[in-house]
Amino acid sequence: MSDKAPWITYRPELKVLDCTIRDGGLVNAHQFSDELVSAVYGACVEAGIDYMEIGYKNSKRIFPKDKFGPWRHCDEEDIRRVVGDHDSETAGLKLAAMADAGKSDWRTDLVPASESPLDMIRVAFYAHQVSEAVDMIAHASELGYETSANLMAVSNINDGEIDTVLEAIAPTPAGTMVIVDSFGHLYREQIDLLYNKYAKALEGTGKEIGIHAHNNQQLAFANTIEAIIYGCNRVDATIFGFGRGAGNCHTELLLGFLRNPKFDVRPIIKVIQELILPLRREIEWGPLVPYNITGQMNQHPRAAIEWREGDTPDDFVSFYDKVVADI
Amino acid sequence: MSDKAPWITYRPELKVLDCTIRDGGLVNAHQFSDELVSAVYGACVEAGIDYMEIGYKNSKRIFPKDKFGPWRHCDEEDIRRVVGDHDSETAGLKLAAMADAGKSDWRTDLVPASESPLDMIRVAFYAHQVSEAVDMIAHASELGYETSANLMAVSNINDGEIDTVLEAIAPTPAGTMVIVDSFGHLYREQIDLLYNKYAKALEGTGKEIGIHAHNNQQLAFANTIEAIIYGCNRVDATIFGFGRGAGNCHTELLLGFLRNPKFDVRPIIKVIQELILPLRREIEWGPLVPYNITGQMNQHPRAAIEWREGDTPDDFVSFYDKVVADI
Repeated sequence: MSDKAPWITYRPELKVLDCTIRDGGLVNAHQFSDELVSAVYGACVEAGIDYMEIGYKNSKRIFPKDKFGPWRHCDEEDIRRVVGDHDSETAGLKLAAMADAGKSDWRTDLVPASESPLDMIRVAFYAHQVSEAVDMIAHASELGYETSANLMAVSNINDGEIDTVLEAIAPTPAGTMVIVDSFGHLYREQIDLLYNKYAKALEGTGKEIGIHAHNNQQLAFANTIEAIIYGCNRVDATIFGFGRGAGNCHTELLLGFLRNPKFDVRPIIKVIQELILPLRREIEWGPLVPYNITGQMNQHPRAAIEWREGDTPDDFVSFYDKVVADI
Repeated sequence: MSDKAPWITYRPELKVLDCTIRDGGLVNAHQFSDELVSAVYGACVEAGIDYMEIGYKNSKRIFPKDKFGPWRHCDEEDIRRVVGDHDSETAGLKLAAMADAGKSDWRTDLVPASESPLDMIRVAFYAHQVSEAVDMIAHASELGYETSANLMAVSNINDGEIDTVLEAIAPTPAGTMVIVDSFGHLYREQIDLLYNKYAKALEGTGKEIGIHAHNNQQLAFANTIEAIIYGCNRVDATIFGFGRGAGNCHTELLLGFLRNPKFDVRPIIKVIQELILPLRREIEWGPLVPYNITGQMNQHPRAAIEWREGDTPDDFVSFYDKVVADI
């Protein structure tokens, strides 16, 4: 990469993960049609995207099948139904699923990687769940999966807690550790500090650092660029920013920024036009004022989501007053 | 400002300019009701905003009064009608108007500052108009106005041209020189390079550097933060990002980021809810896909604006194909 105008060259080792279905599914209990999931898969393959996260490997006890769609559980037969005879090598794309600590029956639900279309298990956890996360990573790794450690809500814990998590994750076989800004709270300089902290703690382990940004303050794409500038080589995005509340870093903005000629933004624009824009007319997401407010206040967007679903969604002032009164 | 966590402290010399009416008026030929302009003024005063740019001081020959609202010309009597007996000192807010090189009868239309509610004239110009801009700055300055030099479309000219403009502006009485990303094209590292270039060229002149960002790639707020981190002390924004095409850096996001306790975001949220959100239902703006595309390609958003006003506004793929074919 050139030092003079780095934005017109690229790092071949930088890989993009599209989590449209996994993260977007939190909006609609993962009740997507097979057609939509299949179209997103096709667009990701055509666009040169490296990983598609197709859903969660979460518990059917906690998320029963009559209330949650198949992408909350990612049974192998469901995946095969939409990706056909997917082969990672041929497709140039690996399939990933996320398993949440505390919400996944990972001991029983994970099959050996050789029997699954999935290549990767991403383990999502809060700081206090790190011990289970370490076990999950070890188990998935033994089954032959690539793994990653996604410490959520990093803006909401202190430096000592982050350090302790990093110490616990460093010796695991996880190939990636992801900086996850669940609340969409972080600004540029905070991304820098976190990247440096993660990089220092994981030095010599061969782990890559990832970024997963939310758009509460319209900073998801910018923070993703920032993490890339610092050295993140694993980058999450969703098509048209689809995701709960304010949504995510937009895949189409990211691909427009990346200069590796293997990426092609056109198939993503096509699927936006044909499927995601119509979905946006039914389901709301994006950096609206209530999400700006919770992001700025470093709060979970839950209250903002409820406000938008309530009787006075556009009464931004009352929401602001409520949030300020509650802190 | 602390080095350790600079985002929780502030620089008292950083000043915010709200250009909602001036820049937003490009969408509707500045046909705002007096009530709206007055409400925006009131919100800016209450919010602690330092400057409100209330419109253009542009030519009535080029923008006739039967087609353009009063905020394209900013006659003193029109301004007084909406701001009453405004006094900058008491209000804690100065009024500004922009004059475009080539589109302003500045020799005849500017009255002495002592006879105007305006405190500041911002001179907007393209690189090739720098000689007129220098004359405009000198003239406005002699009349008693604060002045600024706003070189537009800086992503579209080469380094030699920028250097030549900076050399011409350096000896003028302009108090500020603004980095203007008219096409919403710039990424973080380009902002850094431009800031450093401007700062070096203007060193010792006492000039402040400003930032005026557009949101074509959802980077307006992020680039504004970046410019602030580097040292920009003059920062432009519009309420709810109101502006032509993709719009601008959002005033409410900016105030939520700034830590000077004189700023209060609540009046801005209130005017969004009461007046700007209803306006958004009539007039479209924001970082939609066609604006992403022109921003990425470093093009004027004109083609994207026309596309959104045409027969197939949601046919993003055809727009993409057209733009790619045209370059």
